[in-house]
Amino acid sequence: MIPPDHPRYRSLVARERIAGCARAGVVSLEGIAAHGRGEAFDYLIGERTTESAHVAEKTAAAFLVSAKNPVISVNGNTAALAAGLVRDLQQASGAGVEVNLFHRTEERMNLITRLLEENGVTVMAGKAERLLPLSHDRALCLRHGIFESDVVLVPLEDGDRCQALRSMGKVVITIDLNPLSRTARAASLTIVDELTRALPQITRFCRELPVEQSAKFIRECDNNRFLKSALQEMEANLAHALD
Amino acid sequence: MIPPDHPRYRSLVARERIAGCARAGVVSLEGIAAHGRGEAFDYLIGERTTESAHVAEKTAAAFLVSAKNPVISVNGNTAALAAGLVRDLQQASGAGVEVNLFHRTEERMNLITRLLEENGVTVMAGKAERLLPLSHDRALCLRHGIFESDVVLVPLEDGDRCQALRSMGKVVITIDLNPLSRTARAASLTIVDELTRALPQITRFCRELPVEQSAKFIRECDNNRFLKSALQEMEANLAHALD
Repeated sequence: MIPPDHPRYRSLVARERIAGCARAGVVSLEGIAAHGRGEAFDYLIGERTTESAHVAEKTAAAFLVSAKNPVISVNGNTAALAAGLVRDLQQASGAGVEVNLFHRTEERMNLITRLLEENGVTVMAGKAERLLPLSHDRALCLRHGIFESDVVLVPLEDGDRCQALRSMGKVVITIDLNPLSRTARAASLTIVDELTRALPQITRFCRELPVEQSAKFIRECDNNRFLKSALQEMEANLAHALD
Repeated sequence: MIPPDHPRYRSLVARERIAGCARAGVVSLEGIAAHGRGEAFDYLIGERTTESAHVAEKTAAAFLVSAKNPVISVNGNTAALAAGLVRDLQQASGAGVEVNLFHRTEERMNLITRLLEENGVTVMAGKAERLLPLSHDRALCLRHGIFESDVVLVPLEDGDRCQALRSMGKVVITIDLNPLSRTARAASLTIVDELTRALPQITRFCRELPVEQSAKFIRECDNNRFLKSALQEMEANLAHALD
């Protein structure tokens, strides 16, 4: 038990949730380390949604509600931390939800699908095929899911897969706290924010954003600008800590 | 297998070692996340020992060789990554080594003690008592170990325990890649460097530093200055990424 008066209670609880889901087989050991790296960058960004991330979240909503076949790709960490938030976003955006794992086993696929379904997510079913331009099982996805999607939201993604999806001409939206990662650089739109802060905002904007504003956000989307803002924010926070 | 000429070889080997030790029960799942966090900060500092960390390592050696009862407090991550380096430092400094865990179970205490002993560390034994000003089992330590020490080296420490040790009047030296952490701020001396780079340096300086220089390093120790240098280094690296 983490004492509730611990100053970093919220962060430690999330870490325990990741650890608990690793024990249950939902999260991989590599996923735990990746979570830790995210925590560090969240620290640097001030553990809050920046103005720039706020705009990125509106832009993500604009892409999702304007898409023909939007899909949310869910991995172990996303399911562990945000199954209920994925359900809300699915309802607000009408997106399909596909489970897609870097460390893919049938057991983990089933565990994660069950966790999502228990939280009210409708999970796409079917036989995965090797349809992505990647080696081995990382090429696997559903034909009527990620393969045929035009807009994919892939929170906490691997860099290779992000690039592969882009090379297929898709709009790839990622949620990644590290603005220097290959994923962040390769995506069409990177939301530099923590997953459980970002998802409810995207959901809200899917419901609230007027159609004419959506077109404007899509037109003005500039991923480099979002990454630069995040780096500047981190730099400013470091400078502030120096005062 | 990771190729030894990979630019991030050391980091990737350490990550595999942490995952392997987690499977064996030495490293807690929470410890993997903490390791990931460290990786992110190490990336920002350039994965090398800065000039400032070099001075901090000399200062740590000065404190250890001048102490009456120096103790090295070892947790799962430290044992996993650096059991042999702890042995070297124990031999060079004459410090006692006490196993002290945030996620404390008898099984992990025994596993870690065995791992250290297999690597030639002499581990302090005895019955732990609740002697630290902390709640529950986090108060546990050995009376003739950490409780009676004047200088404690606690690599990769929890912020609460660092503060508790300080409140007992001890000199607390930590090795922490996050210069913004509560541990880093609360410690008497923070070495912002990666564990397996820092320990051999401290060991070397324990052997090489002349006594009269030790006094000078102790007198001039300014933890804020070390933290500032690390922050400046990270800020410069972020600014460089923005170019």
